[in-house]
Amino acid sequence: MLITFEGIDGAGKSTQIKKLQILLQKEGLESITLREPGGTEVAEKIRSILLESRHEISPVGELLLFSATRSELVQQVILPALQKGIIVILDRFYDSTRAYQGYGRGIDLSILETIISLSTYNLKPDVTFYLDIKPEEALIRKFSEKSLPLAFENDDLDRMERSGLEFFRKVRNGYLDIIRLEPQRFTVLNALEPPVVLHRQIIEKLRTKIPALEARNHY
Amino acid sequence: MLITFEGIDGAGKSTQIKKLQILLQKEGLESITLREPGGTEVAEKIRSILLESRHEISPVGELLLFSATRSELVQQVILPALQKGIIVILDRFYDSTRAYQGYGRGIDLSILETIISLSTYNLKPDVTFYLDIKPEEALIRKFSEKSLPLAFENDDLDRMERSGLEFFRKVRNGYLDIIRLEPQRFTVLNALEPPVVLHRQIIEKLRTKIPALEARNHY
Repeated sequence: MLITFEGIDGAGKSTQIKKLQILLQKEGLESITLREPGGTEVAEKIRSILLESRHEISPVGELLLFSATRSELVQQVILPALQKGIIVILDRFYDSTRAYQGYGRGIDLSILETIISLSTYNLKPDVTFYLDIKPEEALIRKFSEKSLPLAFENDDLDRMERSGLEFFRKVRNGYLDIIRLEPQRFTVLNALEPPVVLHRQIIEKLRTKIPALEARNHY
Repeated sequence: MLITFEGIDGAGKSTQIKKLQILLQKEGLESITLREPGGTEVAEKIRSILLESRHEISPVGELLLFSATRSELVQQVILPALQKGIIVILDRFYDSTRAYQGYGRGIDLSILETIISLSTYNLKPDVTFYLDIKPEEALIRKFSEKSLPLAFENDDLDRMERSGLEFFRKVRNGYLDIIRLEPQRFTVLNALEPPVVLHRQIIEKLRTKIPALEARNHY
């Protein structure tokens, strides 16, 4: 069982992932949560290269670096975990590549599909939760969190501010396009709903997919 | 004018590149020599990740990392240099990807072509010198150089020994296949010839391409 979370930065993916992890743990279901790019030694090093904002990486370079970390993560961590029956939760997967590098940066979508199949070994999520939010609202959220002493959160914000709202509008429209092509895989959530409401909607969906969750009432 | 050098490790590319650089300098022709992976700040960092032999990077990950460094090098360094009329000499380019990752590691060649076009922005060498050597002979050369106190040379050797002769046989056969498809771009040289002889053959070929070299006798 592979569950992915998608959405622009500030949509609230981390909060929902944490809630889901806690629930699965309570239910005695083994799960791991991974973020892209990262999750392997090599990928973490590349992650730090990507996040150092002083480097000006081209869109093509960014795509290929992201894809490299993905291929390592899929091969070394995700596929072995899935084979052991562990539930894998991903904070971003290839839909991010389509939305950010394709729709956002303008890289040809058919080239992207070739690189995605290669780097994922054709692995597809069983279910994808897309947290929808307007870029303006996401930015306001990020600003209000800026006082938190988290270096990484601030890096995110720097990148986001630099790239500009127009970019994130393209990314969001990209996500909405992608969902139209594969509606059965996606569950679209309104990221402005309170976190507990979103969590409930996520569980509702997963109940149909994970038998162990079916019988219980988790609200 | 883009000149590339290809061949398995130990074929003697570096020696010939050095000789060519000196000659071009004497003739007052501006040139730069670049190696793959490397040549930009990001690419050098990735190079060190690739060379640290303790990391076990998958063939797909390796391909994508190499391609990422290539896209940065082409966009930031090679294309601007060529536009200024500078002769660019490359120690490996996309033929290495075909030979090593395609023929050597078995990645689908049509996928490779997609990634190559993307990462090179469709740039093609004007002339490619292929130094042909049997892997056994290349390995003997490398061993005899092992006493040199060059950390990088030793890293190369470690990777080479680990990968095994069989791999390098596939790579060499790959090169020979690639050349058959594009014979006019390649000049095939017997790497066992003395370095001065090889240098002369290289100049002979370049005379037809670089007018400034045509009139003189460089032997």
